Amino acid sequence: MSAETLINNRIVLASRPEGAPVAANFRLENEPVAEPGPGQVLLRTLWLSLDPYMRGRMSDTPSYAPPVKIGETLVGGTISQVVASNHDGFASGELVLGFSGWQKYAVSDGTGLTKLPTDMLHPSWALGVLGMPGFTAWHGLLKIGEPKAGETVVVAAASGPVGATVGQIAKIRGARVIGIAGGEKKCRHVIDELGFDACLDHRSADFAAQLQSACPNGIDVYFENVGGTVFDAVLPLLNDHARIPVCGIIAHYNDDYALQPGPDRLPYFVSLILRKRFRVQGFIISDHYAEEHADFVREMGEWVRTRQVKYFEDIVDGLENAPDAFIGLLKGSNNGKLVVRVANH
Amino acid sequence: MSAETLINNRIVLASRPEGAPVAANFRLENEPVAEPGPGQVLLRTLWLSLDPYMRGRMSDTPSYAPPVKIGETLVGGTISQVVASNHDGFASGELVLGFSGWQKYAVSDGTGLTKLPTDMLHPSWALGVLGMPGFTAWHGLLKIGEPKAGETVVVAAASGPVGATVGQIAKIRGARVIGIAGGEKKCRHVIDELGFDACLDHRSADFAAQLQSACPNGIDVYFENVGGTVFDAVLPLLNDHARIPVCGIIAHYNDDYALQPGPDRLPYFVSLILRKRFRVQGFIISDHYAEEHADFVREMGEWVRTRQVKYFEDIVDGLENAPDAFIGLLKGSNNGKLVVRVANH
Repeated sequence: MSAETLINNRIVLASRPEGAPVAANFRLENEPVAEPGPGQVLLRTLWLSLDPYMRGRMSDTPSYAPPVKIGETLVGGTISQVVASNHDGFASGELVLGFSGWQKYAVSDGTGLTKLPTDMLHPSWALGVLGMPGFTAWHGLLKIGEPKAGETVVVAAASGPVGATVGQIAKIRGARVIGIAGGEKKCRHVIDELGFDACLDHRSADFAAQLQSACPNGIDVYFENVGGTVFDAVLPLLNDHARIPVCGIIAHYNDDYALQPGPDRLPYFVSLILRKRFRVQGFIISDHYAEEHADFVREMGEWVRTRQVKYFEDIVDGLENAPDAFIGLLKGSNNGKLVVRVANH
Repeated sequence: MSAETLINNRIVLASRPEGAPVAANFRLENEPVAEPGPGQVLLRTLWLSLDPYMRGRMSDTPSYAPPVKIGETLVGGTISQVVASNHDGFASGELVLGFSGWQKYAVSDGTGLTKLPTDMLHPSWALGVLGMPGFTAWHGLLKIGEPKAGETVVVAAASGPVGATVGQIAKIRGARVIGIAGGEKKCRHVIDELGFDACLDHRSADFAAQLQSACPNGIDVYFENVGGTVFDAVLPLLNDHARIPVCGIIAHYNDDYALQPGPDRLPYFVSLILRKRFRVQGFIISDHYAEEHADFVREMGEWVRTRQVKYFEDIVDGLENAPDAFIGLLKGSNNGKLVVRVANH
């Protein structure tokens, strides 16, 4: 294999979205693949993960991670195969979890790469239930939510990779689990395949009333990863000592966190935090790898192996289809964890 | 001593306040003191504690504790002397910490009474730095705020019994401590007597700018016990991983937590919680006696004994002056912990 003969396809940020991203915010570019230098490896992307947080990187609002610059390759987690190596730690043919972004090839000095077993049955699962979304669910629910047997746990975006995992772990811990999802098809999946006790369609006109009926004992843990109207319906049902891990707010990714029309509910929320002794805690999973990732891999690996936690993927073929798939993700069009098959193994 | 000869003075809730309490919401009543029955003690109140939470009990808004009914004696922590006892556990002359409320005498079956040493130098301190407010400060700061050496801690109501104690504990832990208080006199007290690094007057027109200057490295712990405009100024200065123990919101006690004029900052606040990984946690100190009170007494007793934590009281003489003193407390008129000397020891 000679690197010069290869063409890299990559998708760059053409312009910053105003509100929901549109196709014109993305541009496909082609360029020769760089030759790996001393100590470097050349990676061929097999799988690209598409996740809601990417919307945040497309804006230049201050956040926990720097924005993608105009003209830069969009960021994203990837499973890649080493196709050429000048690095003692990596050999051709090996599989790695990394952060190559929305492109077919990438050169790396090895920083941030994690080797995967070459015979791994589903390498792409390292982008989902066994990767960042699964770790997000595991940490947020168990380290902040701390559900006890018999308590009621409410999970939004219940058919997504984080929500699906949160709910299944909560069931393992003996909680009553109510999912929230968009549309009847997703709700059926959440109940029938994932084993939640109930799942409600947040698009229903009487959603708030349905949620109240489904939670006769109130809500002890609300895993917040959507915001918006779901949060509004949850708030009055929260019990004393409720825990609210906050891991993402997809409903607000498109509005740059602008102030909303009144009334101002912030003083009311703070008074609820006091009177009902809530614990509301934000987290970014990248803060917790050093301390907890090994525990996560051990525990989640066992749950996945024994099918106590089930996992479903929504696979899109071809890098060129990533922008449309991502636009759909923010609208809730995907079924299960969205991944792009960039190349065959 | 014969109980029949005694007259009990008590102050009852005459009507529910609309907004700030006024004198007409209180009524002084006189009645014969009841004779203690079998297993009961008669208590004579020496000290009555006045605290902001009492405003909440005067409303019938749902809260963590039931409201005082119209015509009932107002609730409150007290230091009392046993004046007659038919209870094996108590003898005449003993001092007890209890919850007799706004009255000169009370009959008790012993439930909830804690004996104090009869030779205690300052029995009323068991209502302050060595009692509920001190425990609130100790738990909220150390168990939720968790300040580290070199971090910046901001404390509102810094001259009050909770705020003063929070700041002094934070200094012991090596933090930089910025107090906030109402008026220059209180601010001077907080700096000169309590040893805070700085103290700002929240009534200053440029308060928000002053706070920013006083916190060049941002804010790591904000001990929230006032709400309102102080919270608004603190919010943009909070660092990643900031901790916000929420123990009371005096600025909102008078408005029944009504929704405020817009814009709605709740989505913005939740997005900050996520992006900056805040921990926001409400607590009511009565939840924590069983587990932590002994540790508190040991540690705080030592700090008070060695003058590492100093304590100042604002003493009002006479039960009949309690309503005015309480109305002033909600306006910030007191200097130090407000207690009523109901009778001499």
